[in-house]
Amino acid sequence: MTTSESISALKNIATELRIDSIESTTEAGSGHPTSCMSAAEIVATVFFGEMRFDPMNPQNPDNDRFVLSKGHAAPILYAAWAHTGLFPRKDLLKLRRFDSDLEGHPTPRLPFVDVATGSLGQGICAAVGTALNARRIGSDYRTYALLGDGEMAEGSVWEAADVALYHKLDNLCGIVDVNALGQSRHTQFDHRMDEIAARWNAFGWHTLIVDGHDVEALLHAFAAARAAKNNPTMILARTIKGKGVASVEGKDGWHGKAFKKGEEADRAIAELRTQLSGSTPNPRIPPPASKPREAVKPDTSPDFSKMPAPSYKPGEQVATREAWGTALAALGAVDRRVVALDADVKNSTFSDRFEKAFPDRFYQNFIAEQVMVGAAMGLAARGAIAFATTFACFLTRAADFIRMSGLSNARHQLNVKLTGSHAGVSIGEDGPSQMALEDLAIMRAVPDCAVIYPCDAVSTERLVVEMANYHGLAYMRTSRPKTDIIYGLDETFPIGGSKVIRQSASDVATVVGVGVTVFEALKAYDQLKAQGINIRVIDAYSVQPIDAATLVASGKATKGVIITVEDHYAVGGLGDAASEAVAPAGLTVRRLAVRELPRSGQPTELLDRYGISARHIVDAVRKSA
Amino acid sequence: MTTSESISALKNIATELRIDSIESTTEAGSGHPTSCMSAAEIVATVFFGEMRFDPMNPQNPDNDRFVLSKGHAAPILYAAWAHTGLFPRKDLLKLRRFDSDLEGHPTPRLPFVDVATGSLGQGICAAVGTALNARRIGSDYRTYALLGDGEMAEGSVWEAADVALYHKLDNLCGIVDVNALGQSRHTQFDHRMDEIAARWNAFGWHTLIVDGHDVEALLHAFAAARAAKNNPTMILARTIKGKGVASVEGKDGWHGKAFKKGEEADRAIAELRTQLSGSTPNPRIPPPASKPREAVKPDTSPDFSKMPAPSYKPGEQVATREAWGTALAALGAVDRRVVALDADVKNSTFSDRFEKAFPDRFYQNFIAEQVMVGAAMGLAARGAIAFATTFACFLTRAADFIRMSGLSNARHQLNVKLTGSHAGVSIGEDGPSQMALEDLAIMRAVPDCAVIYPCDAVSTERLVVEMANYHGLAYMRTSRPKTDIIYGLDETFPIGGSKVIRQSASDVATVVGVGVTVFEALKAYDQLKAQGINIRVIDAYSVQPIDAATLVASGKATKGVIITVEDHYAVGGLGDAASEAVAPAGLTVRRLAVRELPRSGQPTELLDRYGISARHIVDAVRKSA
Repeated sequence: MTTSESISALKNIATELRIDSIESTTEAGSGHPTSCMSAAEIVATVFFGEMRFDPMNPQNPDNDRFVLSKGHAAPILYAAWAHTGLFPRKDLLKLRRFDSDLEGHPTPRLPFVDVATGSLGQGICAAVGTALNARRIGSDYRTYALLGDGEMAEGSVWEAADVALYHKLDNLCGIVDVNALGQSRHTQFDHRMDEIAARWNAFGWHTLIVDGHDVEALLHAFAAARAAKNNPTMILARTIKGKGVASVEGKDGWHGKAFKKGEEADRAIAELRTQLSGSTPNPRIPPPASKPREAVKPDTSPDFSKMPAPSYKPGEQVATREAWGTALAALGAVDRRVVALDADVKNSTFSDRFEKAFPDRFYQNFIAEQVMVGAAMGLAARGAIAFATTFACFLTRAADFIRMSGLSNARHQLNVKLTGSHAGVSIGEDGPSQMALEDLAIMRAVPDCAVIYPCDAVSTERLVVEMANYHGLAYMRTSRPKTDIIYGLDETFPIGGSKVIRQSASDVATVVGVGVTVFEALKAYDQLKAQGINIRVIDAYSVQPIDAATLVASGKATKGVIITVEDHYAVGGLGDAASEAVAPAGLTVRRLAVRELPRSGQPTELLDRYGISARHIVDAVRKSA
Repeated sequence: MTTSESISALKNIATELRIDSIESTTEAGSGHPTSCMSAAEIVATVFFGEMRFDPMNPQNPDNDRFVLSKGHAAPILYAAWAHTGLFPRKDLLKLRRFDSDLEGHPTPRLPFVDVATGSLGQGICAAVGTALNARRIGSDYRTYALLGDGEMAEGSVWEAADVALYHKLDNLCGIVDVNALGQSRHTQFDHRMDEIAARWNAFGWHTLIVDGHDVEALLHAFAAARAAKNNPTMILARTIKGKGVASVEGKDGWHGKAFKKGEEADRAIAELRTQLSGSTPNPRIPPPASKPREAVKPDTSPDFSKMPAPSYKPGEQVATREAWGTALAALGAVDRRVVALDADVKNSTFSDRFEKAFPDRFYQNFIAEQVMVGAAMGLAARGAIAFATTFACFLTRAADFIRMSGLSNARHQLNVKLTGSHAGVSIGEDGPSQMALEDLAIMRAVPDCAVIYPCDAVSTERLVVEMANYHGLAYMRTSRPKTDIIYGLDETFPIGGSKVIRQSASDVATVVGVGVTVFEALKAYDQLKAQGINIRVIDAYSVQPIDAATLVASGKATKGVIITVEDHYAVGGLGDAASEAVAPAGLTVRRLAVRELPRSGQPTELLDRYGISARHIVDAVRKSA
């Protein structure tokens, strides 16, 4: 394998990838050629001397996976795939154009990209997920992730390091392109390879330092990584930014800068061409591991029709978070693709019910929400239906990962299902640091993400199934307190729907509740009814997409009076969603929501103090109607 | 100092703190007594054997600082302060009550709390900021941060580790309460102290392992930390969760659980009382270091009246991000409290202008947005006016820190000023991973946070000054492309205001733009004008608070037609803000905003493709008016 011929071929490929990276960025007029040039031998070696994959079918489930965690080096990733023969090399010149999927940073609009990268420190987390997935589907495929050295400053990298160690992911191999230059200056650790290695060693990784421009050394390192058992491997490759073009090598001020079209680019390319030695053919790419394994059908639509119906007794009180746990465990029994990820709160979110039933599909991430969501992305990108859960307030820790999940869902196939428990002031005494009051806004801002917020155990169970069936990203918000069961066991709850739970011909206002406030609306209904005033009460369990037709019809039927009430800040939640939905009909919405920093107290006390209790609904109805 | 008498006193205090922690949580009926009990000797020793501070004036600028990064141990923090004499011990029984500031997790509603904690991994980042602040004000005070061991799973802890090393913060001393139990299970590293120590050593910290229940060993460790130069210190204290009450010591299932009132609590307290030895008086707390230093007035209101006026030539095109950099450097010359924090994008955000002028007040965090915002919190909590900046999309990485900044701003004194550059699809070719389209929603969801989005260089400069003067949190969104200067050099831009930049008596619609879309609105104005149609154009530079009066008046003057247009998703931005502002007047808003995942392309191409260009405004006016 490491014959002098193949070594020479890899060196040539590295040079060609450099040329491609310069040509494409110069044509685009922007991009990061020098960040590609430092990685040229690494990419050439991993693609053409190490990985086993079918280049004509990048989605083959047994292909080795490559994640470009340093997403700004996209041009060299594209060049490598063009080099495999997947698409014509001339297409590279469409880089960054609106009519091309070869975007500035990689997205899964491209068939060879599992997850979008370009926000540093995320690809390595997703790679943890793809490595876990190999175990899930019983495949021998390996995962390779290329990081930048500046990227190691992101804490999420160390979250990934911990989780990979914990799960003994010896099928995961990271490579850091240590070119010592960040965007604006030298990195914190420059070329002090030993200091960097000490970190990875301390985090329990099998760690190797190599000359990142020596393909033979890289081949040996990859072989050593493959041979290492139990621990993941990190290859620290000492490189030079801009390598191959003397005028930019190791120079500050060349980050994210294309060579100017004309003399500047031509001279650089001419210099690189002198580094080519003959026309050695590409080494053959070995096919994916063919070890027989249980068949998986990653493209089959989920079918959860066999799910048991919810089973509760009349008068029972059950928290939606608990019903969620019950439903998740049931889902796991119906489809092996269902997996669960936790961040050390499984006994509060009730994901421990899934763990108990399916310990091998339950992935503990400890208190590290970023890698939890990142790993869920990686698992989902390889066919899992990945439920990741923590307190809703702590999902904000992963907001950037959620943003990138949205982008990774460009084909509506990324089945990441997030659940945030303990939402809102209704958690009570733990206080504001534990109260999610912005999660609906963050999740609604993800295009095509379904946002669900059930009020009782029956609707929760039904909606967990809807989430699982939904194509792509979905979010469910659950609550801490036990609540009444208000729905019949056979009712259905389609995403995009709502439930009109009280109505009459003489309703003076439409009150739209969601989650815990549905019960406040019902109390307000009773109080007003006793005074001879009828209101319509709607449970808007599907916050996105919202049931615009029902809201408009109801609003019209109640003389234009629509009042929303939510255990969330006024920004970006139910009120805004409803307001936009009814605006085309000329209707406005009065929003009851939390409008100040809350504090510790009893749940009922807080609902009242922050303006979202039955009393406030009654007041609002009286003032509006 | 380490006489047998003081040792005995510290042991007694530790036991008393345990008793207080049990009594208060039992009275509250919830809380984390066992997480307090593991930390009792640590807290007793640091408060009564190590720190120098004035307990009657917790805000003395020279006091040593204590940050409870493991915020769920709040009861022992409160008990320690009661023990100093700051407030009566009986107040501890008000824990978690609505009428008390002794909340479930610490907030700065209490005078001895600098930043809110309770979201793990944040206190240590803030402690980096308070340690940097000591250098800023020339004080000898030291910062102590108590972490949980489970907390080390949060990547932000390692971001803090890197930044503290880089800045050689030998005035920072962390203590990890290694009780080996997380919420739902044993931590990843249990009591394997050497594995934990290897990590901190590898990150360059002076690292010590001690028995966390041995006050003498703790005193020695603190003394060693004080003696260490250049590097920060991490004391790894091996402890037992629930220590002191045999029935819960080291037991799983006791996280976040109060002892039941009555026999269970009484028995635990009785057991602890047997551990008290006599009534040794408390050791005297040494006063803060009195080393003479330049006076600082942390409570003085900023006065930026001496700021130079913006200076631009007619016809000049300047990006708002660049004007921001110019203004920030000017601010720094006027008030020494102004500091800047960067995450390795200073040459793109233009914060390098501040660095050049004031290198000692410029703090590099490399690519680590969480610690950047966390350190800004710490600095601001100690009197700095802290401008932290990166690309707007990467501020989402710090969304949970931003959430907690909001909480830390409970007294409207936390002068954290965030700026997100390169917002929206108008960045163009770099593609969607670099486009912030949800930042307005995230920032608007922070109570009392001013959200500013200027369109030209003049308004940017003026608004940077407004941000600096604003009490508490503020956010500015800046843009990548160069834009025309449309305002006169002497115009003013109060927060909460707006600018009506085109109007006539015959306007058929109000078009509200912000940032780059102001120019699209102006183009639409010209096109419509040419067709004999007049529109009113408003620059809503203050997205929060929004200028409701002007919007309502304008909407009424244009027959109720209001169209908003923003380079942001439809959720939680200008459209929602405007909609809520005009709803009480019965007006609705038509929102032009980005409504799908964008892709790479040219800025103008993208504005048009995603529905926010002049053409779309013209269409909307024609359809609505």
